[in-house]
Amino acid sequence: MSFNIAILGASGYTGAELIRLIAGHPDMNIAALAAERKAGMEMAQVFPHLRHLDLPTLVKIDQIDFSTIDLTFCALPHVTSQQVIPNLPADMKIVDLSADFRLRDPAAYEKWYGKPHDAVELQKEAVYGLTEFYRDDIKAARFVAGTGCNAATGQYALVPLIKAGVIDLDEIVIDLKAAVSGAGRSLKENLLHAELSEGYHAYAVGGTHRHLGEFDQEFSALAGRPVQVQFTPHLIPANRGILATVYVRGEAEEIHKTLAQAYENEAFLEVLPFGEVPSTRHIRGSNFCHIGVVGDRIAGRAMVVAVLDNLTKGSSGQALQNANLMLGLPEDAGLMLAPVFP
Amino acid sequence: MSFNIAILGASGYTGAELIRLIAGHPDMNIAALAAERKAGMEMAQVFPHLRHLDLPTLVKIDQIDFSTIDLTFCALPHVTSQQVIPNLPADMKIVDLSADFRLRDPAAYEKWYGKPHDAVELQKEAVYGLTEFYRDDIKAARFVAGTGCNAATGQYALVPLIKAGVIDLDEIVIDLKAAVSGAGRSLKENLLHAELSEGYHAYAVGGTHRHLGEFDQEFSALAGRPVQVQFTPHLIPANRGILATVYVRGEAEEIHKTLAQAYENEAFLEVLPFGEVPSTRHIRGSNFCHIGVVGDRIAGRAMVVAVLDNLTKGSSGQALQNANLMLGLPEDAGLMLAPVFP
Amino acid sequence: MSFNIAILGASGYTGAELIRLIAGHPDMNIAALAAERKAGMEMAQVFPHLRHLDLPTLVKIDQIDFSTIDLTFCALPHVTSQQVIPNLPADMKIVDLSADFRLRDPAAYEKWYGKPHDAVELQKEAVYGLTEFYRDDIKAARFVAGTGCNAATGQYALVPLIKAGVIDLDEIVIDLKAAVSGAGRSLKENLLHAELSEGYHAYAVGGTHRHLGEFDQEFSALAGRPVQVQFTPHLIPANRGILATVYVRGEAEEIHKTLAQAYENEAFLEVLPFGEVPSTRHIRGSNFCHIGVVGDRIAGRAMVVAVLDNLTKGSSGQALQNANLMLGLPEDAGLMLAPVFP
Amino acid sequence: MSFNIAILGASGYTGAELIRLIAGHPDMNIAALAAERKAGMEMAQVFPHLRHLDLPTLVKIDQIDFSTIDLTFCALPHVTSQQVIPNLPADMKIVDLSADFRLRDPAAYEKWYGKPHDAVELQKEAVYGLTEFYRDDIKAARFVAGTGCNAATGQYALVPLIKAGVIDLDEIVIDLKAAVSGAGRSLKENLLHAELSEGYHAYAVGGTHRHLGEFDQEFSALAGRPVQVQFTPHLIPANRGILATVYVRGEAEEIHKTLAQAYENEAFLEVLPFGEVPSTRHIRGSNFCHIGVVGDRIAGRAMVVAVLDNLTKGSSGQALQNANLMLGLPEDAGLMLAPVFP
Repeated sequence: MSFNIAILGASGYTGAELIRLIAGHPDMNIAALAAERKAGMEMAQVFPHLRHLDLPTLVKIDQIDFSTIDLTFCALPHVTSQQVIPNLPADMKIVDLSADFRLRDPAAYEKWYGKPHDAVELQKEAVYGLTEFYRDDIKAARFVAGTGCNAATGQYALVPLIKAGVIDLDEIVIDLKAAVSGAGRSLKENLLHAELSEGYHAYAVGGTHRHLGEFDQEFSALAGRPVQVQFTPHLIPANRGILATVYVRGEAEEIHKTLAQAYENEAFLEVLPFGEVPSTRHIRGSNFCHIGVVGDRIAGRAMVVAVLDNLTKGSSGQALQNANLMLGLPEDAGLMLAPVFP
Repeated sequence: MSFNIAILGASGYTGAELIRLIAGHPDMNIAALAAERKAGMEMAQVFPHLRHLDLPTLVKIDQIDFSTIDLTFCALPHVTSQQVIPNLPADMKIVDLSADFRLRDPAAYEKWYGKPHDAVELQKEAVYGLTEFYRDDIKAARFVAGTGCNAATGQYALVPLIKAGVIDLDEIVIDLKAAVSGAGRSLKENLLHAELSEGYHAYAVGGTHRHLGEFDQEFSALAGRPVQVQFTPHLIPANRGILATVYVRGEAEEIHKTLAQAYENEAFLEVLPFGEVPSTRHIRGSNFCHIGVVGDRIAGRAMVVAVLDNLTKGSSGQALQNANLMLGLPEDAGLMLAPVFP
Repeated sequence: MSFNIAILGASGYTGAELIRLIAGHPDMNIAALAAERKAGMEMAQVFPHLRHLDLPTLVKIDQIDFSTIDLTFCALPHVTSQQVIPNLPADMKIVDLSADFRLRDPAAYEKWYGKPHDAVELQKEAVYGLTEFYRDDIKAARFVAGTGCNAATGQYALVPLIKAGVIDLDEIVIDLKAAVSGAGRSLKENLLHAELSEGYHAYAVGGTHRHLGEFDQEFSALAGRPVQVQFTPHLIPANRGILATVYVRGEAEEIHKTLAQAYENEAFLEVLPFGEVPSTRHIRGSNFCHIGVVGDRIAGRAMVVAVLDNLTKGSSGQALQNANLMLGLPEDAGLMLAPVFP
Repeated sequence: MSFNIAILGASGYTGAELIRLIAGHPDMNIAALAAERKAGMEMAQVFPHLRHLDLPTLVKIDQIDFSTIDLTFCALPHVTSQQVIPNLPADMKIVDLSADFRLRDPAAYEKWYGKPHDAVELQKEAVYGLTEFYRDDIKAARFVAGTGCNAATGQYALVPLIKAGVIDLDEIVIDLKAAVSGAGRSLKENLLHAELSEGYHAYAVGGTHRHLGEFDQEFSALAGRPVQVQFTPHLIPANRGILATVYVRGEAEEIHKTLAQAYENEAFLEVLPFGEVPSTRHIRGSNFCHIGVVGDRIAGRAMVVAVLDNLTKGSSGQALQNANLMLGLPEDAGLMLAPVFP
């Protein structure tokens, strides 16, 4: 059978990535596409790479008849999402890709996003969408909140280690390198090719990046006490990919073993042989996450390096993985595309 | 049912691309992978992006039991191909991706490749693998020779126009821009990132590029008289993609109409609305070819612009499309992957 | 002695490039920098790469005391230039880098720019700033209009050939590849790194690019009769550089000899040995233009390939070269920086 | 007056960068260029971007008459350097750019480079060439060893802090991001554009990178006790630039003040305002190093971020700065070129 899917915010990168993936999905049918400012246009005009697909014309959200829709992906900008979703049918399955419902605590939301939350009730309902760690909750959920792409990368490296108690919780440094598509299609001077190409820099330094809210929430819940990591993202001149170099204290081989066991049966998480490290070039365009562990020359210290594609495993692929679970479909349906290299 | 596939030359880019595509093919099973110098290695070591796949260990060609193989892709270097293929079973279906069997005439081969052909009989048997123009021959063929990636791009722009007689045969200029993966994984100074990134240049100028042999062969056969085009390739700092800007003499709207009609029922060839031009970014990683036509301000002159991905439609995707036909499978099986953008 | 220099529009790429070059100039002193929207800021905030220089604070144009200024560079946006310059002191030397004064004929301006010119008198006074061809006029000029960067590249390839009558005037095709900084620092979706990197395309196709106005004006004047070229620019994923592949009819060796003789004594124009072609990577960040000539396999046809850095020889370097002449300084002062490679 | 300069290893990137810089030096004359395998060639063939310069033909080292040479730059590969330099005139000034003479202790050399040193006496004589910290020694030196480019970046961030005792010596993490030209012009698969572009990865992980030998040597000497840092380099798809994100323990504002004071009178070291971080794009092609300091949200932790151009301040620019001192010339002669942006 085929489920009817709507995508709100179809003119952004995560919307386009959802369409790319769903185009090859055996059990989903794209029934509606919304993009407020581009309503009336064909997708071939907005994203010519989707020209070969037979897709519905872009409409405004309020033009969609949601009674025929089985599941809606919200790929809307932050803040917009918390204003739109309360007005959607209360019994429709929804996967949100924005930052609006990642933090469960209204106070934490206000701290990191600088404003009170507009939909506190929904915030309580939202299941945190890191599939591998919330699989059962997601299967049962009506409303799932996609995670931050940086937050996902860091958690794939760390969650099993915190759970197993094999690292020092007060000595975690996440030095992260992110490609530019994570910033979306917004018009900012520092995202221009002439500015970015051939140069790189740290941003949101000193513990100010919003994805820290997710790290704090998840790691503290897991540890049963407050955990604060150091986190510095850098913007790299590439289109897709996140690489997190995570500095931890613990026995490297035990850390490797812990991760290998935790992900043994996961379709999308690949733990490399001990001592090898991954590259973003080997997960591009795919839903895979590669993880490597190396011991440092200083005893008791190790590095965990995790890579994933911010638009796929970090965002739209994760969203589809969750939607599959919510609809009772095989978790990997439409997602086993091999990475594109070179 | 599932056909058993062997790939010779699996450690190069076109080999890896074949595996990426076949991994999602419903009716093919990769039964053997050969790579002489890397025999004994696992593909995960050679191409870590294929790590998630359950693939056979790399072997030498003579270790393969071809009696169980339904079709073999030869992704070997030029010259090697003409030495290896004569020793393969004479009744096995073969798709060759090298340059060795593209030219039918031994004299033409010697002219463009600077040496006599080592397998003249096979050269006669080979069907030229530009699927859309040789579909019936390919269906019946045992042995198909994949075309040059540049040659394919130029022909998609020009073949219907020459066939229909709507352009001046003596006034054709193909100015082509090729991404770097077309040069393969060979170790050459001018392919280093530090040399190539941020710079671009023309190469094989003045009518010396070997793909001219294909243009001459195909266009002359089509026209029934010698046709010589001007052809200048340029190397562009990008990984995938070919863009051919073809300058022709004729009525632009008639040219557009001719192409649109010729490709009306083709799954992979998309003719844009008149006056629009395509971009390599919109076909990356896919088997699609986008074509645009524009009239010049000078009456009677027009430009046809064609783009495709050199590793997919220009090489491994084309090879798989041909293999599908040779095995009686749907022509587009495993090939409908949407382009990866951004 | 040292001349006092003002730069209007100092917050754009051409403004920054002027400062970079003048910083090493022995006889110029940057006395005033204007940028309307960034007035009050320090250059180190706008362009941190100039942080080491002791530069004046950015001001609004009307805050500059022009009585102390010997020469002003106008690096303002198009249209703004023709509104600002009439209000500057009528006896002050000015080099304009905008498109506003490149076309001498008000009708031609209106045709290509879609509006009547606001400063027709000044338009008449402006000397076309292609230094090598207007050297004497520029030495005597008060007001010089910088050329289009694409227009400059094409003219360096063609002017001596048209002058010498060695090519067919009706059979000229300029296929041009331009890096992205030529589009300036403007916020457009198609200039984002995620859009542009790894992809390339033709734009302003069919004879609609404004630099055609310059080609028409200059080539027709030179030939004494209307000359129309075909011109297709392409946007390439690189920051700096223009490469023009010019297809002409004529004897290749005569063409080479004509160019070599024409530029024999030029400091910045390097004609390569016959049969060699240049690369943008070898002129990056410099005021040099490299030119190569190759004969085609079709007798009587040849290609001239010219490269230059759009921000230097194509814009700010050219402007400084002209300013040197206008101030009686050595033409190459501050301009002999070697290209930056890799 | 003008000093006669020889460059050995002129066909590599650091050799070319030396020529680029010396071309604009008021008091140096390039008298001899050696490149064993390219002897007999003109530099215009090896590095066409230097085509405009009047340079000596490449020769073999033993063809150079060193009696006329005032100072020689050795830009030879590692190991070659320690074999060649003992045979050069014992009273000639030499700046070595290889890794051969950076470590003073033969045992340390053997540990990091895996072989005994071939010129132990010279190793003792060599002055470590980090200009700002060894200025007086360098002025008096005959033989100076250039530092590793990564090692230089880390030391600019850390030396004043270790000297002032304001950070915890046992808690230093250097996460470094290096552009590809640092790997030189060697033909390796992982340096190909198609491999590297759009992807990035960590390498020499776990404390195995040779530049750690320099960190150990310099930091331990400074601290008067063994100091071991954690150091992970990453390869980034860009041509020039190194960015070191250094995680330290200490008071951020005191750290900033310490660095600002230490570099107050340095021409090439720019400490940004507290809380700002630098970008590689703003030092490209120049001899400048920009340094920023930020406090973390966790009290008592801070990040120091330093950027420089590996080919200039990290190698050839540093070498020239040292040569200036050795010859009694102004330290910044030929080195005040502004960075090239964009």
